[in-house]
Amino acid sequence: MQSPHPHLRVDGARLLRRIAALAEIGPLEGGGSNRLALTDADKEGRDLVVTWMRDLGLEVGIDEIGNVVGTRAGREPGAPVMTGSHIDTVRTGGRYDGNLGVLAGLEVVEVLEAAGVTTRRPLAVAFFTNEEGSRFQPDMMGSLAYVGGIPLEEALDVTGIDGATVGDELVRIGYAGSLPCPGPSPAAFVELHIEQGPVLEARGVTIGAVEGVQGISWQELTIAGQSNHAGTTPMSMRHDAGFAAAEIVAHLRRLALEMGGHQVATVGRLDLHPDLVNVVPGKAVLTVDLRNTDAALLASAEAALASFCRDLERREGVAIMSRSLARLDPVEFDPDTVLLVEQTAKGLGHSVHRLPSGAGHDAQMMARVCPAAMVFTPSRGGISHNPAEHTDPVDLEAGANVLLQVLLALAEAGRVEGAPS
Amino acid sequence: MQSPHPHLRVDGARLLRRIAALAEIGPLEGGGSNRLALTDADKEGRDLVVTWMRDLGLEVGIDEIGNVVGTRAGREPGAPVMTGSHIDTVRTGGRYDGNLGVLAGLEVVEVLEAAGVTTRRPLAVAFFTNEEGSRFQPDMMGSLAYVGGIPLEEALDVTGIDGATVGDELVRIGYAGSLPCPGPSPAAFVELHIEQGPVLEARGVTIGAVEGVQGISWQELTIAGQSNHAGTTPMSMRHDAGFAAAEIVAHLRRLALEMGGHQVATVGRLDLHPDLVNVVPGKAVLTVDLRNTDAALLASAEAALASFCRDLERREGVAIMSRSLARLDPVEFDPDTVLLVEQTAKGLGHSVHRLPSGAGHDAQMMARVCPAAMVFTPSRGGISHNPAEHTDPVDLEAGANVLLQVLLALAEAGRVEGAPS
Repeated sequence: MQSPHPHLRVDGARLLRRIAALAEIGPLEGGGSNRLALTDADKEGRDLVVTWMRDLGLEVGIDEIGNVVGTRAGREPGAPVMTGSHIDTVRTGGRYDGNLGVLAGLEVVEVLEAAGVTTRRPLAVAFFTNEEGSRFQPDMMGSLAYVGGIPLEEALDVTGIDGATVGDELVRIGYAGSLPCPGPSPAAFVELHIEQGPVLEARGVTIGAVEGVQGISWQELTIAGQSNHAGTTPMSMRHDAGFAAAEIVAHLRRLALEMGGHQVATVGRLDLHPDLVNVVPGKAVLTVDLRNTDAALLASAEAALASFCRDLERREGVAIMSRSLARLDPVEFDPDTVLLVEQTAKGLGHSVHRLPSGAGHDAQMMARVCPAAMVFTPSRGGISHNPAEHTDPVDLEAGANVLLQVLLALAEAGRVEGAPS
Repeated sequence: MQSPHPHLRVDGARLLRRIAALAEIGPLEGGGSNRLALTDADKEGRDLVVTWMRDLGLEVGIDEIGNVVGTRAGREPGAPVMTGSHIDTVRTGGRYDGNLGVLAGLEVVEVLEAAGVTTRRPLAVAFFTNEEGSRFQPDMMGSLAYVGGIPLEEALDVTGIDGATVGDELVRIGYAGSLPCPGPSPAAFVELHIEQGPVLEARGVTIGAVEGVQGISWQELTIAGQSNHAGTTPMSMRHDAGFAAAEIVAHLRRLALEMGGHQVATVGRLDLHPDLVNVVPGKAVLTVDLRNTDAALLASAEAALASFCRDLERREGVAIMSRSLARLDPVEFDPDTVLLVEQTAKGLGHSVHRLPSGAGHDAQMMARVCPAAMVFTPSRGGISHNPAEHTDPVDLEAGANVLLQVLLALAEAGRVEGAPS
């Protein structure tokens, strides 16, 4: 695959202006935004982006779950090459998470307009409803519904943290569209996103060629021990649920380091009961977040944890119950498209590193129905979901140029279904 | 020291009736009581015990901090041999904690009355204000003030969890007495109490001869690491405050086991921040409760923890701050009095075990001004501060008989100051 216009470049300043304008909606001190899905602020952000789409001549379609797709016609009919991401945020969102992918898509369109280039395949820029999942569960709801991963009615019926439902809120903000959901499969999907992690910055690399998305296993472990007086109970007679929890935390670190590769393990929540200085904890509740790019390795990490817990039960005289909170298998992006991202970045003179995504993205849903991949740009300090989220302007521009050239190559390549052969 | 009336015995049923009657004040489901210090329920409990004291012919005195001492004259004047404990409770108190020691003292007096025995020294039964410290800090306030360990005005000015002050509440419930505080030193002090721990039950022993009270070191450790995305942050790039906390918990277990003896170590509270499943904890706050009967060993446990924290800071790239919450040196009871307790129990045919007290008691304050010791009875399952607190009636009776014979021996022994020689 080759771009027919290898010398086209985005206008980085124009991209930054759109990012700044969108960040002014639901603004937070420090430069971030609060645009929880389907709130008034989200509506205002959607309206602004739809206006930009129309100004750029895109044909705007809204589907039944509120996903918005702006399409630019190609020289031939058929399925479009799609890019995009989301513009909803967490409550303390940064200005780049999601927004970058959507606005870089618009920048690509503006470059093509200015250069008078019409691609062979149509080009589409999408933003998907409720990627963050902060107000309505599950996250990545819009793209999941787009690919048929959740029935439309089930998604519309979801009640949010404030008691409102997705369906009612879509109607209220005027984004209950008429296009059918699930929607038509694109020819390919490529998403530009900030890394939200520290790997690219630490390696001093500009572009990440994302090979896939880590599988996620979330468990809640409840440890039942025996609550006892901290002064009067000899160490040998204790069944300390807090100690058992600490053993699990330490074991998970060892496990992840021993497994190596992309295995990570995190205990983010831990509560002790009765939570008193002078009482041996009788109960502990903790969460375990295991992730791996390899489904078999993720399952083996789960099995190793379960086995450790069985030993711990015997050794400490405690009972450990496990409850699954979430389970997503790893996603592998299309190898050819990942290679295209990597080679395009190199061709543009950028350093590239292949890596998995540790966070979930709309691209992983789209990967169910078409070849998909992602382009990452570095996140300063790995910080995200925070107004302090930052990516250097030169890196943003580099990422957008990679996206531009990748989309051009994909839009020219291969056989277009339904087109005259 | 020998009891002049070795065949006298308490009436176990009568003791149990008084315990049951007192437990009916501020009653809790399951048989316990809620009589937080200086509340209406505490006043009602005090009134009942004072009535019993007067019925038994004791001369009742109330001091400025509300301690109540009922005195029975001896054959000679001088400082009395004193017993007693407290009748305030924690919010979810059992019926034996404190109450046993006071009501067993009254039972001893009733036995002597019935037998027409007048001891050489006077005999006194005391209950001290606010031993539990649940409403007003510090705990053991009444006995601490009695021995001059806290200035009276400072104690009276203490504001409780509900905003009331000790001084106002003493006046309100009618227990702001006129006797001076600090009070006169007794000739000796012996306190009968439930163990509140599992050791005697586990050993199948009826009587504990308490050698002293463990020193206590309470610290709060605050660990500052770095909050990061659980999916995107490789294990090698983390500064996980939760993992550091777990290492401390595990280290304390090893430390206490390696030190052996009476060293115990407990982490009863542990909070992670931001407390989210998918975020590496950036901050952890935990409490450490270290106890030992030996002051030097307690200090060395503190030093070992501090040294471990310094290593951990370097190893994990975190910062650990320590704040002392409480620090009490160990207390050693009078060896002769401890021996008297042990020999008396054996003489009565009971199994005896020498042990330290892991909890604080009024006797440790009285030990500052006179020879003091304690008698423990077993606690089923080591449970205390709970309505399920239980001691078998035969063990209660055994403990009261040991108390009776120990008091008789002490009241007869040695030179009585101020008495004709």
